[in-house]
Amino acid sequence: MTHETMLEGRGQALYRKAKTLIPGGTMLLSKRPEMFLPDFWPSYFSKAKDCRVWDLDGREYLDMSIMGIGTNLLGYGHPEVDDAVRKTIDQGNMSTLNCPEEVELAERLIELHPWAEMARFCRTGGEANSVAVRIARAASGKSKVAICGYHGWHDWYLAANLSENDELSGHLLPGLDPKGVPKGLAGSVIPFRYNCLSELESIVRDNPDLGVIKMEVSRSAGPEPGFLEGVRSLATRHGLVLIFDECTSGFRQTNGGLHLQYGVEPDMAMFGKALGNGYAITGVIGRREVMEAAQTSFISSTFWTERIGPSAALKTMEVMTRERAWERVTETGRGITQRWKELAASVGLPIETYGLPALTGFSIPSENWLRYKTLISQEMLKKGILASNCVYVCTEHSDPLIERYFSELSKIFKTISECEQGGKDVGDLLAGATCHGGFKRLN
Amino acid sequence: MTHETMLEGRGQALYRKAKTLIPGGTMLLSKRPEMFLPDFWPSYFSKAKDCRVWDLDGREYLDMSIMGIGTNLLGYGHPEVDDAVRKTIDQGNMSTLNCPEEVELAERLIELHPWAEMARFCRTGGEANSVAVRIARAASGKSKVAICGYHGWHDWYLAANLSENDELSGHLLPGLDPKGVPKGLAGSVIPFRYNCLSELESIVRDNPDLGVIKMEVSRSAGPEPGFLEGVRSLATRHGLVLIFDECTSGFRQTNGGLHLQYGVEPDMAMFGKALGNGYAITGVIGRREVMEAAQTSFISSTFWTERIGPSAALKTMEVMTRERAWERVTETGRGITQRWKELAASVGLPIETYGLPALTGFSIPSENWLRYKTLISQEMLKKGILASNCVYVCTEHSDPLIERYFSELSKIFKTISECEQGGKDVGDLLAGATCHGGFKRLN
Repeated sequence: MTHETMLEGRGQALYRKAKTLIPGGTMLLSKRPEMFLPDFWPSYFSKAKDCRVWDLDGREYLDMSIMGIGTNLLGYGHPEVDDAVRKTIDQGNMSTLNCPEEVELAERLIELHPWAEMARFCRTGGEANSVAVRIARAASGKSKVAICGYHGWHDWYLAANLSENDELSGHLLPGLDPKGVPKGLAGSVIPFRYNCLSELESIVRDNPDLGVIKMEVSRSAGPEPGFLEGVRSLATRHGLVLIFDECTSGFRQTNGGLHLQYGVEPDMAMFGKALGNGYAITGVIGRREVMEAAQTSFISSTFWTERIGPSAALKTMEVMTRERAWERVTETGRGITQRWKELAASVGLPIETYGLPALTGFSIPSENWLRYKTLISQEMLKKGILASNCVYVCTEHSDPLIERYFSELSKIFKTISECEQGGKDVGDLLAGATCHGGFKRLN
Repeated sequence: MTHETMLEGRGQALYRKAKTLIPGGTMLLSKRPEMFLPDFWPSYFSKAKDCRVWDLDGREYLDMSIMGIGTNLLGYGHPEVDDAVRKTIDQGNMSTLNCPEEVELAERLIELHPWAEMARFCRTGGEANSVAVRIARAASGKSKVAICGYHGWHDWYLAANLSENDELSGHLLPGLDPKGVPKGLAGSVIPFRYNCLSELESIVRDNPDLGVIKMEVSRSAGPEPGFLEGVRSLATRHGLVLIFDECTSGFRQTNGGLHLQYGVEPDMAMFGKALGNGYAITGVIGRREVMEAAQTSFISSTFWTERIGPSAALKTMEVMTRERAWERVTETGRGITQRWKELAASVGLPIETYGLPALTGFSIPSENWLRYKTLISQEMLKKGILASNCVYVCTEHSDPLIERYFSELSKIFKTISECEQGGKDVGDLLAGATCHGGFKRLN
């Protein structure tokens, strides 16, 4: 089928049905069609392979967007990882006994992070966050947690929004009203700004019952010199448990946590997303004296014992190590970022870029930005490309595919430039509604 | 290899290593070797099929114990479910788009539970519990939750132990100190006893900020006439959200929730364990006006979008429906329970049985009970049978296998009877330590 016609496909029809059956329509906010192209986003996939996705009408797309929201660093359906999972199925995914792969996975992660000595595994990032915080609170004997970054949907984290409604706005959830989070948690979580050590120091000084610092090593921008070292030193001086959330950053810039690059060691770290190349597995590693506190609490779940997760992770780690995947996606991502800048300059558009090279994104400062972003998704979709304003790079994003992406994107940037100069009205160019910028209730 | 010799296998060696790498040794408390036979339990599996499990030394066992803690109602490695999962792998487990199977799974669960209109899915039971409580609190606008039963490891639930250390002792976690659970949650969860409507009525009367009742439909014993109806009526009168936790009970006695058998409809229900026959999938269903409250909160996770979970659940539900699996496991379980009673009577032992027929268990009232339980696991293991004091029945538990189980168990019951009468000392018969009775820190 051709992509040029913006005919509604089966995916949109199914999504309309889904909204009557599933509150919010999808299981992940970031995969809501409204986040890309309301009314026309294909919404559902029938097949995915390397960096291609097929919709319910059999149309093929090149994925230059979120690649499963960063789960598939080695591309969709990596043959070796899939074979490891098939073998697991042949041998049985579950039993009354435990799977030996979980012990091996603990060893492998600890090898890559010699400061760590023990591990626990879960199946989602939200869980890994909650497990880490439970253990850290138990180890420190104190309840309060200072946080910086995005750490999932659980009560402990959203509690940050209980005291002041917009506390998490700098942390990826602007405008979120934490309905259903117990008010007793108010004040238990205190956000601090990235690269602002003095703010964290004040929080530590003013909160003697603070026991934990939990942060992303880097998200939009990297650390200023001394920032991470300062956090580490502060945590050590005050006996606080320092947790690095590497669910998103892990394996994209080093063979393991991004913190390895900066030489700053936390007391605990979490991994997710890329760890199993699209299969559900997340984990927490940490120093023994901290991790052993898990034994004083109750942290236990039936499906943490299934075997696909650790089997997929072991094979994914083997392949990533062999291919030095973190170097490839970083290099590819740097190239994409550079070309965005050159393209913008060539048509006279201002542009801002952000994120790790392998999770690169851009925005065009304009009151029409969300409409331009929608236009990009719309026009790229017509050309058979899933795109928005960020690329989660995988090892399958080859030069010819990136050429194809930029060849189409350059035409759209030219159009946007014309809109900015008043020659065209972006509103006339959009076939449907503008994409959502963040959390919003669906109708 | 022979089972008669109680030689330590590779599994025990790996488990000793695991305890140095994983706090608590395993991901699930109920799969700790110490819960069965410290020192000699095989601990890890290399293969599992129908109701057989192979350990790391290739020894084959008949599983007459927890069958993956109830995940594999159709037996391990069910060919149709496994084929559905293999097909999912061939097509891709994950992508930037959503998987259509999640919409179909919502439809199927709602078909079986016509009182429900919407669904959300997760990958573990703890998550399903937390999602249900978040939505229910958001819908009711009130924080406090009355609970009865086991509802996972999350903060919201363990908070019950903050006020009084043993609050959860009647709810499967005796002696648990909720280390790492924020003290601000104290008083937010109030346990009530099963079949004690007056206690729940008092809780509702004394707590105007109570918004949710969350309970298992039945665990050790069934409901007394009028109990479930009374809970429903109380919830309706006071505008409380009633949640039935069917993670354990679902699909074992009816084609769906156990509540279908009693004709009492909750506002929400959760499913897990048996839903995907050993693949990780759990879910929450509910009435539209309650479920829509999810949209006012933030409930979102990357791995809730993977495709194996809903694909496995769809096929599992199809097979369970076709085979009327709930009838078979219930009938088999009733037979096992009856034979335990007859066996105990034949050797003059007192016995107590409990649980749903498909999750049947027994205990022998004696100060030596835990040692007898250990003896059963030890002697059955020598005969190639994984056994303890309960059987999670699957459709593969055929009559000849149950004959074999009772043929071996009868000898052990005779020995226990001799011990009880003073003719033998159970301590002399145990090759290692006694099993744990509940939550205990490992060394």
